Amino acid sequence: MKYGRTFNFSAGPAMMPEPVLEEIRDEMMNYRGSGMCVMEMSHRSKVYQQIIDDAEKDLRDLMGIPDNYKVLFIQGGATLQFSMIPMNLMKNGKAVYIETGAWSKKAIAEAKKVGDVIVAASSKDKNYTYIPDCSDLDIPEDTDYVYICENETIHGSTWHTLPNTKGHVLVSDQSSMFLSRPCNVSDYGLIYAGVQKNVGPAGMVVVIIREDLIRDDLTDLPIYLQYKTHADNGSMYNTPNCWAIYCCGKVFKYLKNLGGLEAMAKINEDKAKVFYDFLDSSKMFKGTVVAKDRSLMNVPFVTDSAELDAEVVAATKAAGYDNLKGHKSVGGLRASIYNAMPKEGVEALVNFLKDFEAKHNK
Amino acid sequence: MKYGRTFNFSAGPAMMPEPVLEEIRDEMMNYRGSGMCVMEMSHRSKVYQQIIDDAEKDLRDLMGIPDNYKVLFIQGGATLQFSMIPMNLMKNGKAVYIETGAWSKKAIAEAKKVGDVIVAASSKDKNYTYIPDCSDLDIPEDTDYVYICENETIHGSTWHTLPNTKGHVLVSDQSSMFLSRPCNVSDYGLIYAGVQKNVGPAGMVVVIIREDLIRDDLTDLPIYLQYKTHADNGSMYNTPNCWAIYCCGKVFKYLKNLGGLEAMAKINEDKAKVFYDFLDSSKMFKGTVVAKDRSLMNVPFVTDSAELDAEVVAATKAAGYDNLKGHKSVGGLRASIYNAMPKEGVEALVNFLKDFEAKHNK
Repeated sequence: MKYGRTFNFSAGPAMMPEPVLEEIRDEMMNYRGSGMCVMEMSHRSKVYQQIIDDAEKDLRDLMGIPDNYKVLFIQGGATLQFSMIPMNLMKNGKAVYIETGAWSKKAIAEAKKVGDVIVAASSKDKNYTYIPDCSDLDIPEDTDYVYICENETIHGSTWHTLPNTKGHVLVSDQSSMFLSRPCNVSDYGLIYAGVQKNVGPAGMVVVIIREDLIRDDLTDLPIYLQYKTHADNGSMYNTPNCWAIYCCGKVFKYLKNLGGLEAMAKINEDKAKVFYDFLDSSKMFKGTVVAKDRSLMNVPFVTDSAELDAEVVAATKAAGYDNLKGHKSVGGLRASIYNAMPKEGVEALVNFLKDFEAKHNK
Repeated sequence: MKYGRTFNFSAGPAMMPEPVLEEIRDEMMNYRGSGMCVMEMSHRSKVYQQIIDDAEKDLRDLMGIPDNYKVLFIQGGATLQFSMIPMNLMKNGKAVYIETGAWSKKAIAEAKKVGDVIVAASSKDKNYTYIPDCSDLDIPEDTDYVYICENETIHGSTWHTLPNTKGHVLVSDQSSMFLSRPCNVSDYGLIYAGVQKNVGPAGMVVVIIREDLIRDDLTDLPIYLQYKTHADNGSMYNTPNCWAIYCCGKVFKYLKNLGGLEAMAKINEDKAKVFYDFLDSSKMFKGTVVAKDRSLMNVPFVTDSAELDAEVVAATKAAGYDNLKGHKSVGGLRASIYNAMPKEGVEALVNFLKDFEAKHNK
């Protein structure tokens, strides 16, 4: 690759589009005649206001976000959202969570500190290798919301069909699949995503929230933890992660120019197919998730022994393919192939694994 | 200036050292042979661990941070610290706050949501133009801590002598004077600073906390809001603001190479003297803060009319000096002259103001 860059299969932070990085580099010493770097700009200045306005507008265009949804840029990662969501949305003190892996588990643990959590379905019985059937859940009438992690980064499963919430508000953690495919925002009450997987640099979450869910009766909460604080102040009650907003804005524009989320989804499907076709035909490697629930973003796979897994990880690393070790809770390997991973990266890795398998079988 | 850069007097985010920005630009497409930009690196990778370790080590060297203090990198700005501090440090539910301006007021408002707040001294009577005498405060025995904002960004006052806490823990918001002068960390229980004023890009706070103040009995708090979470995981329980850590690390190294905080303080004193000497000799402009409590970082000043103030702001802007409008709560003008503002910037602005005054008096 250009500049001696490697194919980086990290689960996040992860690859960003090269043209976006080039633009950022070129604007470093003096952003478009402003006389300063974006990192040096007052967030109250006109030049910065334009940057954040453009970022929001481009994201709205990309996702087709309806006018009755607010877009918020908040610090603290998904981890802080695990708490902010129940603190802000639990009116009746009750929520339904679906447990599909490490990230929904963490969300459940934090929500339990705030109110009653009903785990209405779980795939724990098979180490989170599938998405449970959620077409007819038992959801109490006074449930405040139904929560899912739409793509489990560690376990590699994704929701290809949303759960039937029976009219309740759907809350979704889209961190590891944000902007990877079209999204009908109206199906959700709240969508959030840490941007460091599929968009830009770590340190920011995008929250898309239906306006009627923003409460003004929560003045006893820490001011930073009220969605209202961020909504009423255009995400600038206090200084936001200005740099992340700038970089993500560029990625939003890049995706629009690429043809939007339909085009991105097609590219992602193509890329993932290369990988899964290989896994399905390999005798040495196999995917860990049931076919119908496989993530297009995170592909966990294993050989039949932990020793051989480790050997493969070492070999890929030596060959310049970065970050393929599986998460310790799953073992094996994991290739994260987010939006910015080129198809050639996936093809190169698959060819390497094919060669490895052929040599091993000699 | 090089690259057509301007002297930017913003209160924050603010100027960064030009050599640091050049390094960041040069490492954008491939950080030191890693094959990736720092924004793309897994925070769990060796290459990134080295970046965060170096940043912490250089900060410890710069400030002489004792071994029994932890250094934490946390998102959410000073605003989240306003809540985290009382949530974590109020054992007896009682704290003493000194009210010296807008930022200590905000901290007080958030602390009141958590426990009893005693405002033991205030300079509200004179619109926060001085630091009250805190040599002999009435501090209840069971007070958990005494809180100050060591430099009030908006009002332009600074603590040149710390309060007598009578043996209680001192907590200090150093956001707008962090690393501007030597600091005896042992005088404090907790120091924190949003980095976007005197160090790097917005989106991160550095917290320096004495280990015995980190409690493990707060498991009911949201996990992100417990200092223990960040302390036990080297600030990487979840993905931190990796980019800010990287940029700040470069600034720490830059300050070390400059001769450390003693050298930086001398430069800052020189710079501020140029400005204050001018204000003290001018018939048109005057500083708003009493001489003994003046900030070396934020210099608020006024003419004798709001109309003339506005005229000056417009003239400076037209001449290429950015962000000189005073905060709406104080009016007038404000020049923020943080570490990275060159002395020539201050001299140029002072000369401009002298000319303005001379022409006006013709």
